[in-house]
Amino acid sequence: MLIYDLGKRGQTPLYEYLYECIREDILRGVLQAGEKLPSKRAMAKDHGIALITVENAYAQLMIEGYVTAKEKSGYFVNANVARLNGWAGVEAAEERAKQSKTAREMPPDRNLSQAVISKEKAGDDWLVDFSSSRLKRDAFPFATWTKLMRRVLDDREEAFLEKPESRGVPELREAIAKYLRKAKGLDVTADRIFVGPGTEYLHHLILQLVGSNRIVAVEDPGYKKVGQIYESHGLKCLHVPVDENGLIVDRLWNSNAKLVHLSPSHHFPTGCVMPIGRRRALLDWARTQGAYLLEDDYDSEFRFDGKPVPTLASLDDETVIYLNTFTKTLAPSIRIAYMVLPERLKEQYEEKLSFYSGSVSSFEQYTLAAFIGEGYYERHVNRMRNYYRQQRMKILNALEESPLGSMVSVEEHSAGLHFILRVNAIRDDDAWLKALEKKRIRLQSVASYSYGGQNRYRHQFVIYYSDLEENNLREAFEIMAETMQ
Amino acid sequence: MLIYDLGKRGQTPLYEYLYECIREDILRGVLQAGEKLPSKRAMAKDHGIALITVENAYAQLMIEGYVTAKEKSGYFVNANVARLNGWAGVEAAEERAKQSKTAREMPPDRNLSQAVISKEKAGDDWLVDFSSSRLKRDAFPFATWTKLMRRVLDDREEAFLEKPESRGVPELREAIAKYLRKAKGLDVTADRIFVGPGTEYLHHLILQLVGSNRIVAVEDPGYKKVGQIYESHGLKCLHVPVDENGLIVDRLWNSNAKLVHLSPSHHFPTGCVMPIGRRRALLDWARTQGAYLLEDDYDSEFRFDGKPVPTLASLDDETVIYLNTFTKTLAPSIRIAYMVLPERLKEQYEEKLSFYSGSVSSFEQYTLAAFIGEGYYERHVNRMRNYYRQQRMKILNALEESPLGSMVSVEEHSAGLHFILRVNAIRDDDAWLKALEKKRIRLQSVASYSYGGQNRYRHQFVIYYSDLEENNLREAFEIMAETMQ
Repeated sequence: MLIYDLGKRGQTPLYEYLYECIREDILRGVLQAGEKLPSKRAMAKDHGIALITVENAYAQLMIEGYVTAKEKSGYFVNANVARLNGWAGVEAAEERAKQSKTAREMPPDRNLSQAVISKEKAGDDWLVDFSSSRLKRDAFPFATWTKLMRRVLDDREEAFLEKPESRGVPELREAIAKYLRKAKGLDVTADRIFVGPGTEYLHHLILQLVGSNRIVAVEDPGYKKVGQIYESHGLKCLHVPVDENGLIVDRLWNSNAKLVHLSPSHHFPTGCVMPIGRRRALLDWARTQGAYLLEDDYDSEFRFDGKPVPTLASLDDETVIYLNTFTKTLAPSIRIAYMVLPERLKEQYEEKLSFYSGSVSSFEQYTLAAFIGEGYYERHVNRMRNYYRQQRMKILNALEESPLGSMVSVEEHSAGLHFILRVNAIRDDDAWLKALEKKRIRLQSVASYSYGGQNRYRHQFVIYYSDLEENNLREAFEIMAETMQ
Repeated sequence: MLIYDLGKRGQTPLYEYLYECIREDILRGVLQAGEKLPSKRAMAKDHGIALITVENAYAQLMIEGYVTAKEKSGYFVNANVARLNGWAGVEAAEERAKQSKTAREMPPDRNLSQAVISKEKAGDDWLVDFSSSRLKRDAFPFATWTKLMRRVLDDREEAFLEKPESRGVPELREAIAKYLRKAKGLDVTADRIFVGPGTEYLHHLILQLVGSNRIVAVEDPGYKKVGQIYESHGLKCLHVPVDENGLIVDRLWNSNAKLVHLSPSHHFPTGCVMPIGRRRALLDWARTQGAYLLEDDYDSEFRFDGKPVPTLASLDDETVIYLNTFTKTLAPSIRIAYMVLPERLKEQYEEKLSFYSGSVSSFEQYTLAAFIGEGYYERHVNRMRNYYRQQRMKILNALEESPLGSMVSVEEHSAGLHFILRVNAIRDDDAWLKALEKKRIRLQSVASYSYGGQNRYRHQFVIYYSDLEENNLREAFEIMAETMQ
C-alpha cells in the first residue's frame, strides 16, 4: 500500500502534493518501471480523500509522461522514466533547481520522438538553425481539424452569409472562456473576449482604446516585434530592463507610461517567471498611475513542470489585458488570436470600436470553437507539451554527450520552446556567431533582443528546439566547441 | 444580314460599339424576342472585323441578359427583354438618361428572380428594411467554394504549417493581378498587391505608411466608417463635399491633406461617377501636393450598363492606392480584401511593415486563389450582376405600380446594390422616417451619411435592394405613400 503523509503538504493543493509524492517515488526508483499504481478508488480510500483529487494527480502524471493508463487494467509507471545524470557545467540552472528538476530528470522517449521528427532539413541551407521557432510539421492535428472543417462546411452553410460579429463569433468566445477557466483558472465572461487575426491586430485595437499619443513600456530584452508595432503607430517606446524576476518595476515610476507590455509567465527570451511579489508591485504601480498591463501569454501552454503559472490577469481583472494566440499551439497559418479586456475597456470598445467588422473568417472560427469545445485543443496541447519536453531532453542529452557539454551551461529550460545557452568561454560573441554562420549554424544572441543591455547579456544565446533535426545536432555541437577555442 | 456602320464609332472600341448597336436594335424591337443573331463568323466576315471582336460583343450581351447561347444552334434574343415604359416622376434620372437607360429598360426575369429570392424575412422584425446591404442568402456559390476548400484540404496539407507571407500568399496575389488585368484593365504586378482580412485592416496599414499625424480627406456624404477608422487612429478628417461629378477638387487646395479617400467609380451613397475631367484635376492636385488618392472600388463589380468604369489607378500608378474587397461579391464571412500599392509605398512597406505576420488564413487564401484562377469568380460576379439587375427592376416595377410611384423619383440606379429615392413631397424627413419606423419600415436618409450637407441632401433616401423580399414591397410602398400625406 502506497501511503503518503498528506499533512505535510502545507499550502500546496492536495492533488498537487499527491502528484509530487508519486513523482518523487518514481524518480527515486521507489516505484519501478512497469509497476502498477494503486487504483484511483483505493488511493482515495486509503488517504481518506476525494476520488477527483486522485484523478487530478494521476492525470497530471499522465500528461507529463510518468505513467500510462492501460484500459481496464490501471495505471503503470512508464519504462522510460529514469533519473537523468547530473548536468555538467550548469550554473544558474542549479539556482533554479526546483523549478527545472523535472525537466532535467526526464529523459526522452526516443520512440515517440522519432515518430514526430520531421524528415526535412531545419533551415534553408543550414546544418542546424537554432533560431527557428517553426513548429513541427507533423505536429498539426490535421485529421481532426479537417474532420471538423468538413462538418462546419456541411452544418453551417448559413454562417457564410452572416457578417461575423466584430469581436468574434459567440461560439468561439464561449469556448475560449471555458478553456481559460479550466486551463488557466481565469474566470472571464465571453463578452470580455475579443478575437482577431493575430496578436498584431489586437495590438492595433488596444492602441486605439488606450490612446495612441501615449508612452508604452516594453521589456528589454524582449519581443522586438511589439516595439516595432508601437513605433509604427507613432508611439514612444520605453525599454524597461528585466532582471531575474522580470521587468524592473522601479523603472516605471516617473515614466508616464500608460501601457506596459510583458510576458510575466515566461519572459522572452530570458525565460524568467515573475514572482508574486514583483507582480504585486507592478499591479500597485499600474493602479496608482491608471496604466494598463498587457499580459502576453504567448507560450505559457508549454510549461513543463506541470504547475501552470497563474496569470497576472487572474490577480486583477481591471488593470490587466490578457493576450494569447493559437498560432504557437496550432499552426502559423491559422490566424486566430484573442484578448480579454477589462470591463472598462470592453465598454470603451463597444462605444468606440464596435463599428469594425469581424476580422477572422467565420468558418475557421466555428472550426476552432468545435476543436476547443470538444476537448481536442486541450489534448493537442498536452500531446505537444509532451513532445516538446522529449525534444528538449533529446537536445540536452546530445549537448551533454558532446564536447560542448562541459563548456556551457543551460538556463531556463522548464517552459516554452527555447532555452538559453550560456557560453562564458567565448571572448567575442559576434565573432563566434559569424564563425558559426560560415559553418552553416545559425544562432541568435540574447543581446540581439535587447536595446540597452548588450553587455549584461553577453555570452547568452537562444536555442529554439521545436523543429531541430536530431541527426545534425552532434556535428553542430562539435563545431560549436571547436570554433570556441 | 445585320450590318452596322462601324465607322461611326468614334473613340469607342470596336467590340463595344458593335455591342451597343445590337443592344439598341434589341431594345427598339428591330431584333425580336427569340430571333437568332448572325453567327459569330458571319458577323465578323460581314463587317471585315476579327472574330474575337464579335465574340467580345456577344459575350457582353450574354452577361447582360440580352441574348442566350444555345449549344450548337447559335445566339438568340431573350424573350424577356423589352422596353420598360417611361418612368413617372423621374427628374434627375432624365439628366443621366444615357447612363441609366439600360437599367430602366430591362424588366426582370421573374423566373430567375424567384429562384433566388430568399424565403426569410429581410430584417429583424421589419416589414421591409431598405437599409440592409445584406447579401442574398442563396447567392453564395456554396457548392463550388466547398469543393475547392476540400481540394485545398487534401492537396495543401503543408500550407497549414507555413507561416503565411505578410502581404498574402503568392498564388492569391497572382490570381488577383490577372483578374485586375482582365476585368478592370489594371496592369499591376503581384508584388504590388497586399492582402488583408478586410479593408479596415488595410486602412491601418496605409495610415502607417502615409503617416498618422496627417490630415485625411473623405467624401461628404460618404462611407462613414472610413472617417471613424481615421478618427479612431487620431487623425483629423476633412469632409469634402461632393457634387454630381464627385468630390469637389477645389476644396482640397490649401487643405494640407496627404491622403484622400474616395470611390470615383460609384460614389457612396449618391452613386455618381467621377468623369475623366474631374479625375484629371484630382490627380493634378495630388501630384502637386505629394498626396495619395485612395480609390475604394467597393462595389464596382456591379455596374449594370456593361461598360466598367476605368479605375483611377489605371490613370496613375504612382499616386493612387487601389482598394477592393471580396466581402461584397462573395460573402461577408470571407474576410479577404486587397490593395494595390504604388511602387514607392510598396518599397516603404517592405522596409517598414514587412515584419507584420500574414493576417488571413492561408487555407482560405488558397481556396480563393483557385476560385479566381479557375474562372469561378468572374462567372459568379456575372451571375450576381444579372441577379441584382433583375432584383432592382423588380423593385422599380413594384414601385411604379404602387401609389408611391408618381410621388417620387429614382436616381443613380445603374450600379451597385442601392439607388436613391427622391421624395420631394415630404416636409420633414426625420418625421417621415420615424412614422415609417413605427410601421416597421426602415429607411436611411442620404443626409445621415453627410457631415455638412444635411440640407443639400433633403428628401433623398438610400434604397438597398440586395436582399429585399418581394412579398412585402407592395404593402411597404403603400404605407410610404400614405405616411407622406
